[in-house]
Amino acid sequence: MTTLTFTKLHGLGNDFLVALDPPPSLEYRGAEIARSLCDRHRGIGADGLILSRASVESSSTALLGFKLFNADGSEAEMSGNGIRCLAHSALDAGLVPDGQEFGVATPAGVRQVTVARRSPTTAWGSVDMGVVKVQGEADRCNVGHGQLLVDVGNPHLVVLGPDPATIDVKTLGPLLEATDPAGLNVEFVTLGPGPDEITMRVWERGVGETEACGTGSCAAAAALHHWYRTGTAVTVHQPGGSAAVELRPDGSAVLSGPSERIATCTVEA
Amino acid sequence: MTTLTFTKLHGLGNDFLVALDPPPSLEYRGAEIARSLCDRHRGIGADGLILSRASVESSSTALLGFKLFNADGSEAEMSGNGIRCLAHSALDAGLVPDGQEFGVATPAGVRQVTVARRSPTTAWGSVDMGVVKVQGEADRCNVGHGQLLVDVGNPHLVVLGPDPATIDVKTLGPLLEATDPAGLNVEFVTLGPGPDEITMRVWERGVGETEACGTGSCAAAAALHHWYRTGTAVTVHQPGGSAAVELRPDGSAVLSGPSERIATCTVEA
Repeated sequence: MTTLTFTKLHGLGNDFLVALDPPPSLEYRGAEIARSLCDRHRGIGADGLILSRASVESSSTALLGFKLFNADGSEAEMSGNGIRCLAHSALDAGLVPDGQEFGVATPAGVRQVTVARRSPTTAWGSVDMGVVKVQGEADRCNVGHGQLLVDVGNPHLVVLGPDPATIDVKTLGPLLEATDPAGLNVEFVTLGPGPDEITMRVWERGVGETEACGTGSCAAAAALHHWYRTGTAVTVHQPGGSAAVELRPDGSAVLSGPSERIATCTVEA
Repeated sequence: MTTLTFTKLHGLGNDFLVALDPPPSLEYRGAEIARSLCDRHRGIGADGLILSRASVESSSTALLGFKLFNADGSEAEMSGNGIRCLAHSALDAGLVPDGQEFGVATPAGVRQVTVARRSPTTAWGSVDMGVVKVQGEADRCNVGHGQLLVDVGNPHLVVLGPDPATIDVKTLGPLLEATDPAGLNVEFVTLGPGPDEITMRVWERGVGETEACGTGSCAAAAALHHWYRTGTAVTVHQPGGSAAVELRPDGSAVLSGPSERIATCTVEA
C-alpha cells in the first residue's frame, strides 16, 4: 500500500485531481485509480485525474506533461479547464513562473499556457486551444435565428436564440446531439448582457448539460464573431462562471478563466 | 485563513467528511463550511460534515460528540452510516478501543457504538439505532402483498413485493412518500436470496432513491420479522452494499455495516 497525494482544483465547476511527478506505480494504474478516486461517493470525487511530470527544456522554458484520465478511466486528449487546473497546481508547487508563458505537452500537441495568481487559493489561466474552424450554417431546429457548425478539435453546433434560461436544454440537447452520426456538442447562446459578451448553456456530447465548456466557449465566440455580432475578445457567461475567449488572426483561440484550489488529499492505494 | 483537516469516509456509499476535535472557528461556521466543502464540484464533496469532540467520562468510557451538518447546511439528529464513519475515524486516531463499546452523544441522545478494524482502510461498526416501532398495516398502493408503517424516529412505509429491481422506484417512491402529509421514507423489499436475508431499494423522504439507508434497513427488518418471515438477525442487501440488523427483545435495533476511509484532506478556509 502506497500513500499518494493529490490536489483537487476546479475551473468553472469542472473539477480535477492533480498529481505532480506521480510515482511510476500511479502512471501505470492511472485508469484504475481514476475510476476509484473520481467516484463521487466512494472516492474523493472529480471529473478527471491529471498526472503530470515537469521537465525543463534546453530553452529553459518549463514544460509540463499532461495525461488526463476521465472518471470512467478513458483518456482525454485535451481539456481547457483541466490544463488550467494543472497550471495552477504547478504554480503552487513553484514549477512554473507566475504570469509567463510555458508549454504543456498534451496528446494533442504542446499548448502554450499562462497562469497568474489571484489569491492564496485562486488563479487565472490562459490556454491556447488551437484552431477554431467555422464550417458552415446549419438548420437543425426551429429555435432562434442562426445555427453554425464549428470545429474546435471536436464538433459543435452553436444555436443563437433567446435567453438560454428559457430553453429546454434537457430535451433539445440530446435531439440536436443526435443530428450528426458522430454526435454534436450543442451551445445555446444569446448576446449580452454587455457588449462583446454572450450568455450560454451547453449540452456536451455523451455527458449531458454541464456547468461550463472550454471548447464550447471557443465555438460560441467564433460563431458570434462570424456573424459580426462581437469583436475578437469575447466574454462567455455560463452557469459555472465566466470565461474569456480571444480569437486570434491565425484562426486559433485562447481560452482564459479562473481556477480554485480546493484541498490537498492523501490516499492509500 | 486557517488550515483545516478532514477525513473522508463512506459507509455503504453514504459519504462524510469527519473533523475530530475541530477548532472552535470550525464549529461556529459548521453550516457554512458544510455547504462549501460538501459541494461535489467546488468542494471535496460529501453527503455531510461531522464535527466531533472526544472526552473521557468518569466511568472511563470514551464518549464522542456527534454534530452532523447535511450538505445543505441543515443539522441532522442522527445517521447510522455517519456514526459508523465517525467511529472508524476515531479508531484510526486511537480515541476509541477496537471492538469495545463506547458512547456517541448525538442530538437524539447517547448511542452505544462498537467499531472493529477489518483492514488498514476498512472497519465494521455497530450502532444502537433506538426503538423500532411497527405501527400497523397500510394499503397505499397495489404493489406486492403487504405494507407496514414503521417508526424508527422517522416514518417509514415498508412494501413487501417482487424483486425491487423490477419496481419503478422513481415513479412509485414520490407517490408513496406523499401519502402522508409529513412525508414517508419508502422501502421496497423482497425476501432472500438466503434465509433471514432481504433485498431492498429505498426512497428517502426529501432526497430520492439512495444507495442505502440505515433507518430504512431497521424498518424493513422489523417489518419482515413482524410478518414472521425472518428471525431477529437480518441481513439487508441494498444497491450500496449489505447491512446487518439485530432486533433486540426490548424493541430496539442494532445496525451494523462496513466503512472505508477514502482520504485525508486539508483545506484552507
